[in-house]
Amino acid sequence: MSDPALTARMADAIRFLALDAIERATDGHPGAPLGCAEMAVALFTRHLRCAPQDPTWPDRDRFVLSNGHGSMLLYAALHLSGYPGMGMGQIRNFRVLGSNTHGHPEIAPEHGIETTTGPLGQGIANAVGMAVAEARLAAEHGRDFVDHHTYCIVGDGCLQEGVAHEVISLAGHLQLGRLIVLWDDNLITDDGPTTLSISEDVRARFRAAGWQVLEADGHDVEAVSAAIEAAKADPRPSMIACRTVIGKGLPRLEGQRGAHGGRVLASDLTEARAAKGWTYPPFTVPEDVAAAWREGVGGRNRPVYEAWRQRRETAPAAARAAFDRVSAGHLPGDWRETLRTIRDRLAEAGTARPSIEISAEIVGELATAIPELFPGAPDLEGPTKHKQTLPAFTAQNRGGRYLHYGIREHAMGSMMNGIVAHGGLVPVGATYLVFSDYMRPSLRMAALMNLPVITVYSHDSIAIGRNGPTHQPVEYLASLRAIPNMLVLRPADATEAAECWELALANRSGPTSLVCSRQDLPVVRRGGGGKNLCARGAYVLAEAEGKRRVTLIGTGSEVALALAARDALQREGVPTAVVSMPSWELFAQQDAGYRASVIAKDTVRVAVEAALRFGWDRWIGEEGGFVGMTSFGASGSPEDLIRHFGLTAEAVAEAARARLG
Amino acid sequence: MSDPALTARMADAIRFLALDAIERATDGHPGAPLGCAEMAVALFTRHLRCAPQDPTWPDRDRFVLSNGHGSMLLYAALHLSGYPGMGMGQIRNFRVLGSNTHGHPEIAPEHGIETTTGPLGQGIANAVGMAVAEARLAAEHGRDFVDHHTYCIVGDGCLQEGVAHEVISLAGHLQLGRLIVLWDDNLITDDGPTTLSISEDVRARFRAAGWQVLEADGHDVEAVSAAIEAAKADPRPSMIACRTVIGKGLPRLEGQRGAHGGRVLASDLTEARAAKGWTYPPFTVPEDVAAAWREGVGGRNRPVYEAWRQRRETAPAAARAAFDRVSAGHLPGDWRETLRTIRDRLAEAGTARPSIEISAEIVGELATAIPELFPGAPDLEGPTKHKQTLPAFTAQNRGGRYLHYGIREHAMGSMMNGIVAHGGLVPVGATYLVFSDYMRPSLRMAALMNLPVITVYSHDSIAIGRNGPTHQPVEYLASLRAIPNMLVLRPADATEAAECWELALANRSGPTSLVCSRQDLPVVRRGGGGKNLCARGAYVLAEAEGKRRVTLIGTGSEVALALAARDALQREGVPTAVVSMPSWELFAQQDAGYRASVIAKDTVRVAVEAALRFGWDRWIGEEGGFVGMTSFGASGSPEDLIRHFGLTAEAVAEAARARLG
Repeated sequence: MSDPALTARMADAIRFLALDAIERATDGHPGAPLGCAEMAVALFTRHLRCAPQDPTWPDRDRFVLSNGHGSMLLYAALHLSGYPGMGMGQIRNFRVLGSNTHGHPEIAPEHGIETTTGPLGQGIANAVGMAVAEARLAAEHGRDFVDHHTYCIVGDGCLQEGVAHEVISLAGHLQLGRLIVLWDDNLITDDGPTTLSISEDVRARFRAAGWQVLEADGHDVEAVSAAIEAAKADPRPSMIACRTVIGKGLPRLEGQRGAHGGRVLASDLTEARAAKGWTYPPFTVPEDVAAAWREGVGGRNRPVYEAWRQRRETAPAAARAAFDRVSAGHLPGDWRETLRTIRDRLAEAGTARPSIEISAEIVGELATAIPELFPGAPDLEGPTKHKQTLPAFTAQNRGGRYLHYGIREHAMGSMMNGIVAHGGLVPVGATYLVFSDYMRPSLRMAALMNLPVITVYSHDSIAIGRNGPTHQPVEYLASLRAIPNMLVLRPADATEAAECWELALANRSGPTSLVCSRQDLPVVRRGGGGKNLCARGAYVLAEAEGKRRVTLIGTGSEVALALAARDALQREGVPTAVVSMPSWELFAQQDAGYRASVIAKDTVRVAVEAALRFGWDRWIGEEGGFVGMTSFGASGSPEDLIRHFGLTAEAVAEAARARLG
Repeated sequence: MSDPALTARMADAIRFLALDAIERATDGHPGAPLGCAEMAVALFTRHLRCAPQDPTWPDRDRFVLSNGHGSMLLYAALHLSGYPGMGMGQIRNFRVLGSNTHGHPEIAPEHGIETTTGPLGQGIANAVGMAVAEARLAAEHGRDFVDHHTYCIVGDGCLQEGVAHEVISLAGHLQLGRLIVLWDDNLITDDGPTTLSISEDVRARFRAAGWQVLEADGHDVEAVSAAIEAAKADPRPSMIACRTVIGKGLPRLEGQRGAHGGRVLASDLTEARAAKGWTYPPFTVPEDVAAAWREGVGGRNRPVYEAWRQRRETAPAAARAAFDRVSAGHLPGDWRETLRTIRDRLAEAGTARPSIEISAEIVGELATAIPELFPGAPDLEGPTKHKQTLPAFTAQNRGGRYLHYGIREHAMGSMMNGIVAHGGLVPVGATYLVFSDYMRPSLRMAALMNLPVITVYSHDSIAIGRNGPTHQPVEYLASLRAIPNMLVLRPADATEAAECWELALANRSGPTSLVCSRQDLPVVRRGGGGKNLCARGAYVLAEAEGKRRVTLIGTGSEVALALAARDALQREGVPTAVVSMPSWELFAQQDAGYRASVIAKDTVRVAVEAALRFGWDRWIGEEGGFVGMTSFGASGSPEDLIRHFGLTAEAVAEAARARLG
């Protein structure tokens, strides 16, 4: 039995580290670290499976602080747990440029930070993705290798966000029994009492979704710990409602709205110390408390960790190799060869097909070559075709290879971030391009976290026709290209689609958007073999006959228009080249000489893309020609729309002619 | 008592109009029109308060088809109700370019279409906004003027989307008793049975949020009608779970996944007619059925409509004028004067302040001048300051003027669309710029629908400092500017903020994003009076002394950097002008001569903006200089970040120098 006084001081150690750090930083959010201190003690020192000396241990529990503004809770707990990257120097430098202790937690598994949180709702959605990964990997590799839980602390804010509702629903459906959410139920939001904006019975809402709901006094370590024990024992995902007082221990702000993000003053440090009888100077942890933390985390986990290492050592070599490979995030050695073979076969077939169908065919073959490939879609299995023969991952079948996300695009985006952050799987999400807006907050997080999350988009232009402007992207290529670290690929035909798939899988430092057509794309590249031409972002697909006077640049479905326009111009005696530009980002990375040779600034430049001009001046100059969209689309047959909006080869040729001397 | 056989044929009339139209269009979604035919008969011919001869009657019930793919349900019902813009020619031209019968419903109140739906979840969120508008307007103008309901049909897809959960929660909290949602509970989604992706007890989920939940056989007009009656009688918002069979009446696909969006064949028309004993040729409604529909809609409503007109006629002139004015969407006559006065006062004060604070001060004064102004924020009342002294709109106080949306940005965006589509109020949403991603699907819909929705964004750059990259916009100006018909305004100081507010309110044909700083903005414009200089999008703030060699273009907080750089360059003898460019969109609308005089292509051009270069080449050319961001931000003090990312006047001057001959 633990010593209640020592336990209380273990929580107070979090409080004072948080207060000292926030006061020193001159800003921060004291409310959550103070309100959740006992929850963190219960979780970290009684339950969390982790190895501070080996922070990236693959079978560690994953912990997500979804209310990321309470970052000092996490940093203090990691410091007290003994994570080497969270020494007292880091705590002192909270929110200082260059420290590990950022304003909101930023992903760094090597320091115990599993994901970046801040925008509310993302953390719990990441956690649900992590729990999916755990369940899937346990089925694949066995409990000797994979036997952990996912924990998440959420605030009221997280639970109001739509994305949270999406993943709560899906987590219940999938019966992710190893997911345990602790709700910091403090009855306060930034505006004031929660009654200003919510009357919902949050417990009933979780129950409606198939969760176990438990209660605990959030300031009673034993109660929280017992609830976690009960949560682990239940086959359902569990939500533990922990009633807390925001800012507890900070007399001036405790229980009040101002505790959320209010300034901590020097006088607060004095008052809080007096109230708690905490006699230690700032940034000091008394040795008995420090020892209790070390024992509760590292000491408790040492035999667990060693037992796991032992199991791994004695496992059959093939099983160990397979687990080690996916844990390290390495694809099977021959994956590039598989893709080159597919490319050359597609090139040889030379058939006009929708690029989304080609992507689906590629994914079908990759699923065999890459056992960790894990596709899914938000209720668009049919139109995106990426399921094919893969069995579904369900509550009953953890060996399933395809996830039905339901009509929950945002959940898909954020869960894929969690799956990738967890490691061991390569998720692929497939939806319509317009629905990328629904998952945009998660796309940004993937880019910010450098997570290699692949999303395949279909229905990439007005050529979808009659479903109308709500389903017709025009601004999406621009808005995706605008996200730093997002690789956008828009292949022009089957050959390019295979090459783009190779680039998507090779991109290990950020997300990829693979933008595909619903309609048939004519073949623009003949013959297989050789280098991946898409790898340089843009290349001369058809050089001018004669000294080049015109450069036509196209992407995706419009490359064929550029080729037809070239034919017309060449017939008129105008030497014209066509550049296929599947990726701006890759092209921008090429050396200046290559870029100059491709876009040839001394020629008349015309770009064609079934989207807005926005951003294109970078490649064609402000005087360049552009054939594309200038507004939203409309409902009508594809043929009528193409004509109406002037997306024709003739318009491309005309734009060039108008600029020739 | 109605004739059951005739009632059944009234529903079948919808079915066959839908089938005939979808077959003729060669695509469409038969599942919902066939599955919801009886629901539409119950609603339209028994309950819906409307006036087909005066479709925009302000006190009509609002009806939203949230599952917009079922558009033929709406078009058939409107046709049968006698809306002049929905004649048989329109039905025959379903999904043809230029018709009123688009693939998904597109807002056209003059034809009975209250909002554009298609992206799932948006419709129900619009409906919740409409119900808020109704309640608010009834409190302001009285039940003689405002006495209607909001109805919404939703499918399973809508109810899985996060935005739906956000508005379900808020509608329950606000106790919007005049909101009635009919759920097409057909157990099927595009992927197959709903059990593939959801196990949630949807009824319990609504109850948890404070709704009344009712049940009806969705194919029993009397049962649905009785449930609507019960819904009207209850003070809570009501959800009627209507169990239906998707595609009912289409033997080949009825009850199956393929009914959702499957192709309707000529043979289907024959088989369906045989099954139903429907002997009429395509696009033909038998006269008894047509008469029953006319009587059920127009006939039933005639006395209601006349009574309302009578009440309006006999109302006090001031009350009538006030109601007519807001219904017509006209602002009070002196609103521009109010803003000019504010501007001149701010200009005279000449104080460096955060533009979000100035915007809040302006909104505070406008709230007096414009009684229909209706601000709100997603739990950021404090940081955005837009509430000030306004009382909250709550379940108890319908006279409230400020809406606490809770931590539900997407709900705010979509509800504001619904509020504006309803008419009578001028909502203003205020949040952080990074959270615009959460509401991006609704921003797009506002732009597509030409709805004048104003959103004010604070925290517009890395200058927010320590909260870190999750809260620091870098790509948002680009991504907002990329949305067609979105007016983006980024004022440089208090004077520009007032001018931008005038432009925001003057913009009646689309949404406006007013982008503000958290930090103090130094004064860049001295002296009030005169024209609104921001109205042209960009203007020469400081002309060069001497023949201009350099043009520095800035927006918002960076205009001050451009001015400082100009000082340095002028000191070095380089005649330099500074252009303030609060709005790309307005500048693009100016004549070529004005544009040329402002950006002066024959000078060295350098832009400065605390954001990505993406899109800027349009104004500075591909060789122009740019000082801004090239990546996400970081957590640190504002001063450290500004230095680290090189956002300085010296960097601007240096970029110019590097380009001078």
